[in-house]
Amino acid sequence: MTSRAATTTGTSLVESMLATSGRFARIGDFDRWLGDMRESTFMSVEQVALEDLRGWGQDPATGNLRHETGKFFTVESLAVDFPAGPVSNWSQPIINQPEIGILGILVKRIDGVLHCLMQAKREPGNQNGIQLAPTVQATRSNYTRVHQGRPVPYLDYFLHPVGHRVITDVRQSEQGAWFYQKRNRNMVVEVSADVPVLDGFCWLTMGQLHGLLRVPDLVGMDARTVLACLPLGGPGWGAILPHADEFGSALAHSCDPESGSQRSLTDILSWVTGMRSRTEIQARLGPLVAAEGWRRTDGRISHESGRFFDVMGVRVRAGGREVGQWMQPMIQPRSDGIIAFLVRPIDGVLHMLVSARPEPGFADVIELAPTVQCLPGNYGHLPVERRPPFLSEVLAARPEQVRFDAVLSEEGGRFYHARNRYLIVETDAPIRPDRDDYRWLTLAQLTELLQHSFYLNVQARSLVACLRSLLTGSPARPEPPR
Amino acid sequence: MTSRAATTTGTSLVESMLATSGRFARIGDFDRWLGDMRESTFMSVEQVALEDLRGWGQDPATGNLRHETGKFFTVESLAVDFPAGPVSNWSQPIINQPEIGILGILVKRIDGVLHCLMQAKREPGNQNGIQLAPTVQATRSNYTRVHQGRPVPYLDYFLHPVGHRVITDVRQSEQGAWFYQKRNRNMVVEVSADVPVLDGFCWLTMGQLHGLLRVPDLVGMDARTVLACLPLGGPGWGAILPHADEFGSALAHSCDPESGSQRSLTDILSWVTGMRSRTEIQARLGPLVAAEGWRRTDGRISHESGRFFDVMGVRVRAGGREVGQWMQPMIQPRSDGIIAFLVRPIDGVLHMLVSARPEPGFADVIELAPTVQCLPGNYGHLPVERRPPFLSEVLAARPEQVRFDAVLSEEGGRFYHARNRYLIVETDAPIRPDRDDYRWLTLAQLTELLQHSFYLNVQARSLVACLRSLLTGSPARPEPPR
Repeated sequence: MTSRAATTTGTSLVESMLATSGRFARIGDFDRWLGDMRESTFMSVEQVALEDLRGWGQDPATGNLRHETGKFFTVESLAVDFPAGPVSNWSQPIINQPEIGILGILVKRIDGVLHCLMQAKREPGNQNGIQLAPTVQATRSNYTRVHQGRPVPYLDYFLHPVGHRVITDVRQSEQGAWFYQKRNRNMVVEVSADVPVLDGFCWLTMGQLHGLLRVPDLVGMDARTVLACLPLGGPGWGAILPHADEFGSALAHSCDPESGSQRSLTDILSWVTGMRSRTEIQARLGPLVAAEGWRRTDGRISHESGRFFDVMGVRVRAGGREVGQWMQPMIQPRSDGIIAFLVRPIDGVLHMLVSARPEPGFADVIELAPTVQCLPGNYGHLPVERRPPFLSEVLAARPEQVRFDAVLSEEGGRFYHARNRYLIVETDAPIRPDRDDYRWLTLAQLTELLQHSFYLNVQARSLVACLRSLLTGSPARPEPPR
Repeated sequence: MTSRAATTTGTSLVESMLATSGRFARIGDFDRWLGDMRESTFMSVEQVALEDLRGWGQDPATGNLRHETGKFFTVESLAVDFPAGPVSNWSQPIINQPEIGILGILVKRIDGVLHCLMQAKREPGNQNGIQLAPTVQATRSNYTRVHQGRPVPYLDYFLHPVGHRVITDVRQSEQGAWFYQKRNRNMVVEVSADVPVLDGFCWLTMGQLHGLLRVPDLVGMDARTVLACLPLGGPGWGAILPHADEFGSALAHSCDPESGSQRSLTDILSWVTGMRSRTEIQARLGPLVAAEGWRRTDGRISHESGRFFDVMGVRVRAGGREVGQWMQPMIQPRSDGIIAFLVRPIDGVLHMLVSARPEPGFADVIELAPTVQCLPGNYGHLPVERRPPFLSEVLAARPEQVRFDAVLSEEGGRFYHARNRYLIVETDAPIRPDRDDYRWLTLAQLTELLQHSFYLNVQARSLVACLRSLLTGSPARPEPPR
């Protein structure tokens, strides 16, 4: 499949990655457009007690939070047994949203260069209001219009892509710590016919879009995961991409499946199979009232330790969105997180140190995750040797080791002010890690795995998009748009 | 990955596929060896009423059948909702065996040709006693020795393949109509050191082993599924393999990912994603007493219509197996089944007509299945238009259309006399099927998908092995061994 992509779509993807101008001749023009969007739309978000959420109630028997229509999502509890884990069993609130939504980016060749149709979208959980979202970001409730909002624009290109070119279409998981087996369909569809650009939408090249990943809280999680699933890479990319320096050369060769890798993909797949066969983790949904250690106080549900996250409620008023006003529960983490890949060139090819990580909400035991993924606040009370592996190395990195560093937001439709610092840190950590749950993979291997479901978790997918941003011709650290 | 496989392991796999002689200079020598095995081992299997199964009891609250140790497996009920299906809801007994077992074939180069270490194994459900099994066929209960039997020979090569070469290692599903989310680890490991050949084991080339697929009830299901997961194929195979005729040429090119295919793999993956996103099927485990329409009479559990299958019990006495004597419940289908691929050359490349099939026990909604997979006996009472698609075409095939035709057994450890007629039938059915749940795929595409979990169901995997048997140099229809 990679070879097919390289010969046809692959070339247009390279061109689009290297294009820093397009519909917006300069990225400053985009900043002005975004400023206009900020001014012409609004959203006010107010915290309210869970018991005051109109339309939402508690099931009398289970205590689960649910909408009166039975749609959208529920907040239930999950009882987890993980005998070999750092904590061998626990229970926690979790969002259960079994429907498969669509996250879709429409792409089109404009003046010879592929452009992505992106949406400036306000979400209640966004700390800064507007962020860049895919063309379509629709739950099934959204597009079957349970909430009786307006129809979702551009949806039909993804529901019925007949006559268009599907570049990627794969279900991927979302946060396994907060969602029970949530999965969305990540799609990129290329059209050749004219596409009307509605208010709030704009065309960006792949290069511009990846360049914007370095702006804090701008490219949203849903956009990042779709970008990560794109087959950006293929045979020959190592030669096509420009090499600014040794790191750039190693990165370019990492996109090329014909470059050497520390382990063959067969070995990596065998490692995943072994981890999934051996790791014993059981998770059962249950009544929210049974979540041990969690208390309802001050209109929210919190852990008695003050760590992890809260379930809280918001009242939202918005202009320029499907519905003018609504209330909903959200998850609010207790602190910002750290999400990082340690990377190093091995024989001139950049490799990422990937962990095989169990999360209770995963459908299939483990997924491949960043080297470090944690809320450091959860570990402050623990001795150093019980903190997450490699966290201290990431935090102690010298400036010249840090290749990418930006604070980005998680999905603002379910998570309230959930922000993570995404880091790519060059290291000289050993090529043979002494832990069996870590392996070095190239970007080409990660890209190949991303053509299939449930190999990479959502945090690793975000980092794949961040890694690729280092390939673009954009300035290393643009100023955030005003 | 395919390209890597083709350059190294690929070549030895081709050689082994084309080798009709090896450790057994002639296949007649194998027949004699097998005859000796039949004479030197025995197994007597007697049907007993479920209530007389020693070591097995019914849970008083649920009626579920379970072993007194809590290990092995349970028989529970599954309540299925499939609103768009031919039957929109039903319940049924189902085997729940959440452990992941290992099915492993050890391979080794002998006199320059790769050989597979196969086991002649008796299973209580085998109609004819002995069948060919992988080197290792072990449930986790087996190898943690819950039943206190002897250690499983050769297991360590698969549990700790350090220093050996893993050729394939992937978890795959088993019968979704009879098993709840059952999965086994399918492994092929190549060793270079000497391997002692224990009594009951023998070395066969890939060509010899695939040739034996045409003998009724000889190559068991567990052997077939592991063979199917082997990366037999790769760039250049179309040129390397001999072409006896136009069909042979189309088959050889079908193994080559560089041959044209009717749809790209990206399109096929998008189709699978769409089917898995849209198909609504819910299956919930529940108490066996709640399985509506199922009755316990004469010591077995049967459907009131007399169709589908029975849950029944056996008492087994064996020599040359881990335990001398035991009892267990089994599933006995009410009739033999038909499992068939319609195949046709498209632009000189053989394509298989694959269906996207929901089965209630699947972990992920649908898997790719044969064109036809049914117990015809379940449909005799229905008008023709409600019978399975393409069944009549398969049954009415002229002899010259039939490229493969053999009755093979399903797993004899859980299924009693479960036999299916496996057919490969050449057709001139339309290249654009008018049903969205069918697609034409090449053998190279099926092989690529088989490197990942849960794309092809166990019946389709058996047919992939049967298809590949048509590549070997063996005689088309050997006589069954005496």
